[in-house]
Amino acid sequence: MRVSELGEFGLIARLQSRIAQEPAPPASSPFPSTDGHRELILGIGDDCAVWRRGSDIHLATTDTMVQGVHFSLETTPWLDLGWKALAVNLSDIAAMAGIPDYALVTLGLPGEVDVDGIDSLYEGVLDCARSYHTFLAGGDIVSSPVWFVSVSLTGHPSAPVPYPNNVLLRSAARAGEVIAVTGQLGSSAAGLRLLQEGGHPEQHSLARAIQTHRRPVPRLDTGRLALEAGVRCGMDVSDGLVGDLSKICAASGAGAEVHLPDLPVDPAVREAFPGAWPGFALSGGEDYELLMTAPAEVIDAVRERSDLPLTVIGRVVPGEGVTVTDERGRQVSLTATGWDHLAAHLH
Amino acid sequence: MRVSELGEFGLIARLQSRIAQEPAPPASSPFPSTDGHRELILGIGDDCAVWRRGSDIHLATTDTMVQGVHFSLETTPWLDLGWKALAVNLSDIAAMAGIPDYALVTLGLPGEVDVDGIDSLYEGVLDCARSYHTFLAGGDIVSSPVWFVSVSLTGHPSAPVPYPNNVLLRSAARAGEVIAVTGQLGSSAAGLRLLQEGGHPEQHSLARAIQTHRRPVPRLDTGRLALEAGVRCGMDVSDGLVGDLSKICAASGAGAEVHLPDLPVDPAVREAFPGAWPGFALSGGEDYELLMTAPAEVIDAVRERSDLPLTVIGRVVPGEGVTVTDERGRQVSLTATGWDHLAAHLH
Repeated sequence: MRVSELGEFGLIARLQSRIAQEPAPPASSPFPSTDGHRELILGIGDDCAVWRRGSDIHLATTDTMVQGVHFSLETTPWLDLGWKALAVNLSDIAAMAGIPDYALVTLGLPGEVDVDGIDSLYEGVLDCARSYHTFLAGGDIVSSPVWFVSVSLTGHPSAPVPYPNNVLLRSAARAGEVIAVTGQLGSSAAGLRLLQEGGHPEQHSLARAIQTHRRPVPRLDTGRLALEAGVRCGMDVSDGLVGDLSKICAASGAGAEVHLPDLPVDPAVREAFPGAWPGFALSGGEDYELLMTAPAEVIDAVRERSDLPLTVIGRVVPGEGVTVTDERGRQVSLTATGWDHLAAHLH
Repeated sequence: MRVSELGEFGLIARLQSRIAQEPAPPASSPFPSTDGHRELILGIGDDCAVWRRGSDIHLATTDTMVQGVHFSLETTPWLDLGWKALAVNLSDIAAMAGIPDYALVTLGLPGEVDVDGIDSLYEGVLDCARSYHTFLAGGDIVSSPVWFVSVSLTGHPSAPVPYPNNVLLRSAARAGEVIAVTGQLGSSAAGLRLLQEGGHPEQHSLARAIQTHRRPVPRLDTGRLALEAGVRCGMDVSDGLVGDLSKICAASGAGAEVHLPDLPVDPAVREAFPGAWPGFALSGGEDYELLMTAPAEVIDAVRERSDLPLTVIGRVVPGEGVTVTDERGRQVSLTATGWDHLAAHLH
């Protein structure tokens, strides 16, 4: 079987089930005097791995961006690429309501490139690290025919309470809860589309969308506030709302209903892409907003305490999978040509 | 300036000096209740980064292998590639005398490959993880036109004593100490050469060299024993003896003299490559042996306690750089055509 038939998520699920069969290494290693108790609390399948040694809990995540697949130097300047490579990892820590600690940055690059670009890239990484109190601890630089940036990031829970109440989990959604999302959806996809079409960032009403695409802002504060307020289920929207919400559904053994008209979408994006915006918002990806589920009053409490807009977009229901309905309550479903095409029919 | 003019190590040094200018994030973050004291003790420039949060010390390292640059599927089977991707990181933990904790594994791969190969690759990773009590905590799978495997690995010091006495450092070599290396040098390079020339692994006196190339063994036990015995300076030989010893010299502000005839080289390698073996041993790379410096009696103590051969190959001297001498005490120097060519003159 080819990887392309299985898909990235199919492949990850396959490996996850294989790795789950693997016996854990002994909790007390051959070196009990320094090791203490070691335990992998949460492996593959959430935004971060959760690991315990002694009384200390670590969060860890890694994300990689490959040229031509996850970024293009045509649409993402070096400085922004560096920022984004770290920010998308910070977003995973935010999705666990964690506090970032230190990052390792690996850069794969062809030899025949100019050093100035690399300097800019690292300035972007450092700028992002500085903004979120993260230490750049090391990394690697390797020769590669294609550019890639791979970041590993550790962190720790923000709440001094036992697991699982110290983190937001994909598996904690319960029927009856509402589904809420921070900020706006679809802006990154809209910004990318504009850049691909040759639009100039500064001279456009979509400047904010382009900024969202290039320099996503990890929702660290809101993640922590949400946990404090009593939210237990969260993840970040990196692969598109419906795809990511499906992961919450699968992990929680629940279904979800999303109301398309309630999605928070920048008016400038709606105006510039009247047919395509629902597709951007439902499955555009790279939003890096926080998706959470909780009782309605808990979401209200988060909204009161957060500077960021927090919009209820649907609810958790018994069953499985994600259902999207339009303004007349009709079910919208994904077709082979994507949400864009479908969305065009709705208007 | 092009990256190719600066070289990998030049580029790393450039970034290291830039990052060193960066003010550290505040030790007490906005979240003092859970953070405790946070400190990057040792950043770029050794085998691992060393990090403290509260009373807990972490080691962290990352290494990436890119197809066509660091490996070829022609000469490295999937299973061995998985093993090696983790083992080279474990070697960095060994070089700090640490104990490995957990790994994140990122795989970049083209869509049109068979899933069987990937299954084998992860079997290799799991096999290595099991062998060295390491947890596979997560990772990422991304689409990429070129194969790569990137591993991040955390660990912790084996000795419950304060830094810097809980780790082996590149910067701790002192004039008057002897230089010692575990196992044998040049085998990996010899094994690779044979594979590139189409030699068959099983039918050859170099089967052991090929095994060394494909499945390096991290020297975790010896690293810990060395620290216990009083060794303070160590690193692993990944880029070749002379190159790596040069890094110890630069970090320690000292010079090194290496005696070519004393290098531990497999007799089968000497026989198969009578002209090339000195080059393999001095700069072949991928040995993943431990290089250490210490007073002679401390090295003797390590040798008594370790199952692994430990060979004195030279000594630390005042000055700078690495000098290699032949059996008549004449200085051997690297030429544009490498050590191989030069070595041929010596015989």
